[in-house]
Amino acid sequence: MSLIVMKFGGTSLADLERIRHAARHVKREVDAGHQVAVIVSAMAGTTNQLVKWCEEASALHDAREYDAVVSTGEQVSAGLMAIVLQDMGISARSFTGWQVPVRTSDVHGAARIQSIESDDLRSRLSEGQVCVITGFQGISSLNRITTLGRGGSDTSAVAVAAALGADRCDIYTDVDGVYTTDPRIAPRAQRLSRISFEEMLEMASLGAKVLQTRSVELAMAKGVRLVVRSSFDDPDAPQVAPDGSNSGVPGTLVCDEDEIVEQQIVSGVTLAKSEAKITIRSVKDRPGVAAAVFGALADEQIVVDMIVQNVSDDGRQTDITFTVPDAEYDRAMNAITSDRERFEYDTITGAKGGAKISVIGVGMRSHAGVAASMFRALSEKGINIQLITTSEIKTSVLIAEEYAELAVRALHTYYGLDREEEG
Amino acid sequence: MSLIVMKFGGTSLADLERIRHAARHVKREVDAGHQVAVIVSAMAGTTNQLVKWCEEASALHDAREYDAVVSTGEQVSAGLMAIVLQDMGISARSFTGWQVPVRTSDVHGAARIQSIESDDLRSRLSEGQVCVITGFQGISSLNRITTLGRGGSDTSAVAVAAALGADRCDIYTDVDGVYTTDPRIAPRAQRLSRISFEEMLEMASLGAKVLQTRSVELAMAKGVRLVVRSSFDDPDAPQVAPDGSNSGVPGTLVCDEDEIVEQQIVSGVTLAKSEAKITIRSVKDRPGVAAAVFGALADEQIVVDMIVQNVSDDGRQTDITFTVPDAEYDRAMNAITSDRERFEYDTITGAKGGAKISVIGVGMRSHAGVAASMFRALSEKGINIQLITTSEIKTSVLIAEEYAELAVRALHTYYGLDREEEG
Repeated sequence: MSLIVMKFGGTSLADLERIRHAARHVKREVDAGHQVAVIVSAMAGTTNQLVKWCEEASALHDAREYDAVVSTGEQVSAGLMAIVLQDMGISARSFTGWQVPVRTSDVHGAARIQSIESDDLRSRLSEGQVCVITGFQGISSLNRITTLGRGGSDTSAVAVAAALGADRCDIYTDVDGVYTTDPRIAPRAQRLSRISFEEMLEMASLGAKVLQTRSVELAMAKGVRLVVRSSFDDPDAPQVAPDGSNSGVPGTLVCDEDEIVEQQIVSGVTLAKSEAKITIRSVKDRPGVAAAVFGALADEQIVVDMIVQNVSDDGRQTDITFTVPDAEYDRAMNAITSDRERFEYDTITGAKGGAKISVIGVGMRSHAGVAASMFRALSEKGINIQLITTSEIKTSVLIAEEYAELAVRALHTYYGLDREEEG
Repeated sequence: MSLIVMKFGGTSLADLERIRHAARHVKREVDAGHQVAVIVSAMAGTTNQLVKWCEEASALHDAREYDAVVSTGEQVSAGLMAIVLQDMGISARSFTGWQVPVRTSDVHGAARIQSIESDDLRSRLSEGQVCVITGFQGISSLNRITTLGRGGSDTSAVAVAAALGADRCDIYTDVDGVYTTDPRIAPRAQRLSRISFEEMLEMASLGAKVLQTRSVELAMAKGVRLVVRSSFDDPDAPQVAPDGSNSGVPGTLVCDEDEIVEQQIVSGVTLAKSEAKITIRSVKDRPGVAAAVFGALADEQIVVDMIVQNVSDDGRQTDITFTVPDAEYDRAMNAITSDRERFEYDTITGAKGGAKISVIGVGMRSHAGVAASMFRALSEKGINIQLITTSEIKTSVLIAEEYAELAVRALHTYYGLDREEEG
């Protein structure tokens, strides 16, 4: 018997039929003898309507009132889920954030969870009752309803799982797991059975928008095993992992890397298009220059992605290159050139239309030569590398956008990630 | 400076434009220097949608979950009202039932208010903040959200007014006050400036569906002065009473009869159509017979309206006559005739298509002959009276339905209730 937290997103609860379908997933776990807490988002569309009303009421609406209004969406879906579960003969009741209570900071619209009172939940779970808890919300020290910001229900689920010491936190969503790369680009992309928290964080921030980054960070910090799986699956189908093992989780398990026995060197290949690069040549190589350049960009709210600075030839001048989204290219150029005297550089050049390709894998830590092999694989396809950055478990390159899909497929094949042909 | 409770119903808050219009009424009172608490219903249509979802979720839904779902409607309108008020430069905040808290019994869906914590509200009001409170709901001793049942927002408003010792409780609705009779029947019906609680109760239960009966009873018990007025009025128009006095209340004030200086003998004439009468003749006149007859009807959930029993000629047998809605006539006849031996009567007769006409007025207590003059007024029009019942402040007669409008107009004129012709 396990204690499982199950989280359902808005598209999984869009109407009564879908709520009933989601409830059948809950019933399967209850029937298997597990203790189950359910975290729900608002029914799809509801939150947008509530937000629109707040904006109509006033362009400068009070965030506390916004939270009171918007938090009702989850209260409705929690109540309906409890009713549907009861209708299936399952003991269930709903909890709002303030009823649990989920205590948060006072930053309305973007509150952080501080503590979760779990004694009452725990005793109800042990009596076999399913506790259906509103995601995305809590209560402040001033007794007012707070919300965690968009996508906060994933974070609520992880926080509840941590407070309860749950064996697993299953995130039911509209995709069936985390893939080695985008299947629309590489048709032989595979669904991963397992991925480490660190890899998932790199994947999430690179565009695989499956899980909210904050929820992955929290899961890693608290050691909560996450599962990403589809709510649209047949709830009564055999529970088999993507690699065929009968592990009870047909999605992707996000867990500590120690739990991943046969670690691939590379777990995934990600792509981010429309990156523009800007190179500032012969900048004075002295403390504070980089801070000044990127400070000027930050003042303009421009998010910089890759940053490369080489050691200078003579110790007096250096070149700095960075990337920004194509859409920000003109503003970024302007932010630097309009204050030329301050930065004291020689020339500035740049171009739109780059693509960032990253290979991600905790195996890189222990395997030398991953970066070198990546460059070789690209050169074999005649792809020129413009920029390189690396982190502990990731190597990223900037290439011309026209080669993007070719590069993804080549690397996917090169690192042995391709699914075997069927039949 | 007064402390005023203002209650807005769902049609007065149906969209942002109407909420803004309602907020202008609040602003007028704030600008006049009054302390204001606002009670809101859910936006029109919202509650019906929420109830429908609960019914779709399960025909036998848990009343506690129903309350959690349905109570969100008022939370949304309270938040939006607070935002709109702030946008007008007025200090305001919303309160849910549990935040006040409004403590209720545990009877979900039909809870009764037990106490209202008013210290925090009072100190905020004294600082000039408008407290916007969700109507229709509270919190049980088990920390769960309760609702008071349909129309409960009027009761919430009166209870808050009582707890705060408010000078007035203004019920903003889609009619502009209480009339002497239905203006569609008697075009010269007048809006009353004042009406006593007792009269209002008789009016409310006789079909003038302006205020929920329970809220009037509570107002009478707690001595809360109620005003019925239209939310669609121009908020910036002069505040003049229907009788032309500049009393600050352009609607109808429902108050203690002591406050009504020039008491009319009759305040209003009401009409209820489609009443069927049933007469049981020569029933044994002994204890328990009436109880048996009306017990049989109650068992069938049939609501009986008028009941008349005369003293018998010989002390051994009597006739009983009562009325039920036309739609219940067949079931009522069947309930009696199917158990004929038990009741031991001679004959039973009946007919559909009656109309009950009532004249109401606390003045009847001190003025003899009101009933007699009523019968005379009707006979002058050739209207035959079939049944008569009386209470302390009301006399009702049953007549043939075809004479209903004629009777109402005749009595309205007879008791001097007609508005004077204009111009």
